Amino acid sequence: MSHAASAVKALAFDVFGTVVDWRGSVAREVAALARQHHIEVDALAFADAWRAGYAPAMDRVRTGELPWMHIDTLHHMILDSIVSQFGLQGLSDSEREHLNKAWHRLAPWPDTVAGLNALKKQFTITTLSNGNFSLLTAMAKNAGLPWDCIVSAELFKHYKPDPETYHGVASLLNLPIGQVMLCASHPSDLRAAKTQGMRTAYVMRPFEFGEHVPLPKVETGEFDFVAQDFVDLARQLAA
Amino acid sequence: MSHAASAVKALAFDVFGTVVDWRGSVAREVAALARQHHIEVDALAFADAWRAGYAPAMDRVRTGELPWMHIDTLHHMILDSIVSQFGLQGLSDSEREHLNKAWHRLAPWPDTVAGLNALKKQFTITTLSNGNFSLLTAMAKNAGLPWDCIVSAELFKHYKPDPETYHGVASLLNLPIGQVMLCASHPSDLRAAKTQGMRTAYVMRPFEFGEHVPLPKVETGEFDFVAQDFVDLARQLAA
Repeated sequence: MSHAASAVKALAFDVFGTVVDWRGSVAREVAALARQHHIEVDALAFADAWRAGYAPAMDRVRTGELPWMHIDTLHHMILDSIVSQFGLQGLSDSEREHLNKAWHRLAPWPDTVAGLNALKKQFTITTLSNGNFSLLTAMAKNAGLPWDCIVSAELFKHYKPDPETYHGVASLLNLPIGQVMLCASHPSDLRAAKTQGMRTAYVMRPFEFGEHVPLPKVETGEFDFVAQDFVDLARQLAA
Repeated sequence: MSHAASAVKALAFDVFGTVVDWRGSVAREVAALARQHHIEVDALAFADAWRAGYAPAMDRVRTGELPWMHIDTLHHMILDSIVSQFGLQGLSDSEREHLNKAWHRLAPWPDTVAGLNALKKQFTITTLSNGNFSLLTAMAKNAGLPWDCIVSAELFKHYKPDPETYHGVASLLNLPIGQVMLCASHPSDLRAAKTQGMRTAYVMRPFEFGEHVPLPKVETGEFDFVAQDFVDLARQLAA
């Protein structure tokens, strides 16, 4: 085990994009629903539009403009605001509710489950996601994600990248923050975690936003580890 | 599925005594440690003495006499107060710390893992324990307990039987409290949960306090289910 890895006792994972493919999963669900209604929909554009509302909605909570709200609730607000532009305004309330829960049913990347099972043998593995606790629990059950525990921004009433989330997960695990490593595909999340003293592993997810979107730029040596996927990360951490 | 079970979506489990055999596990650990030091110890009496300090220590937190403290910390306070009477005052700090973590390594009852795996197929299964979050996470990893998520009193900064704990678990699971069932071997915990609107399953653990301690008295019909063990509970809930 490398020097950097030897101090690490727990891995905390970002989830949307890092662990699961939100774009492909949401697109598949909306395409299936649209087909039932004989509506033509640009399913990937729909997924992108939904996701585009996510950070601004959380920022409204982070700045205090909105009171604390679950991601389920924020997702529903965004969904309501985009259905018309995709011709989906005719969905019933229960169909809309079901579609909103597509975020509970996101599919893992091909390496996710095997990688997590390998990592779980060496480390405590947990989520550290802005997704609400029940969403993350349902997703794990549905997708077979073998977390040791579920940690959500909901437990701290603060969304990432607020420092409370990074310190919060270390506190719950009863570990110094320097013994916890954030694993994420988003450099902004990793940089915020690093500032608070967490270890960091950047995991590349080249298809998170589609095939033609370039990977974000990261500096050499900026993060403790850079991995192709979770299986690669497990190999590096075991080395 | 029976009428009472059909509304239930999640099972929340008390842990110490209900899921794991704290008495036998703690006794085995202290006996092994005492043997290394050539000390004679009444290992079961030691386990009982340690456990006897537990409810009073939590009550000091519940009443505000002590600030919020983890069970790990409370266990250590109690341990420090009983070592002399068992001739164990010569243990080093690291041995004492290791012994304190015996509560992270408690062994499941023989039916526990099979029963939980069966119940997990039908319900979301979680802990609802006064044990701290990291203790419950470590215990699950060590004993192979297949929880969907870990819920601890620590998340609410309230110990059971404070109502905040029962409402807290329902809120995290995003369920009406009437769709969550507490499974416990302690009638007092179940009665407090029932008062708050939870469903209740009493699971008999005749050897929790030793072979000659009679089971607590419960009224017929007082709880929604009465089960011999977790495998029996799974059978009843599937019926």
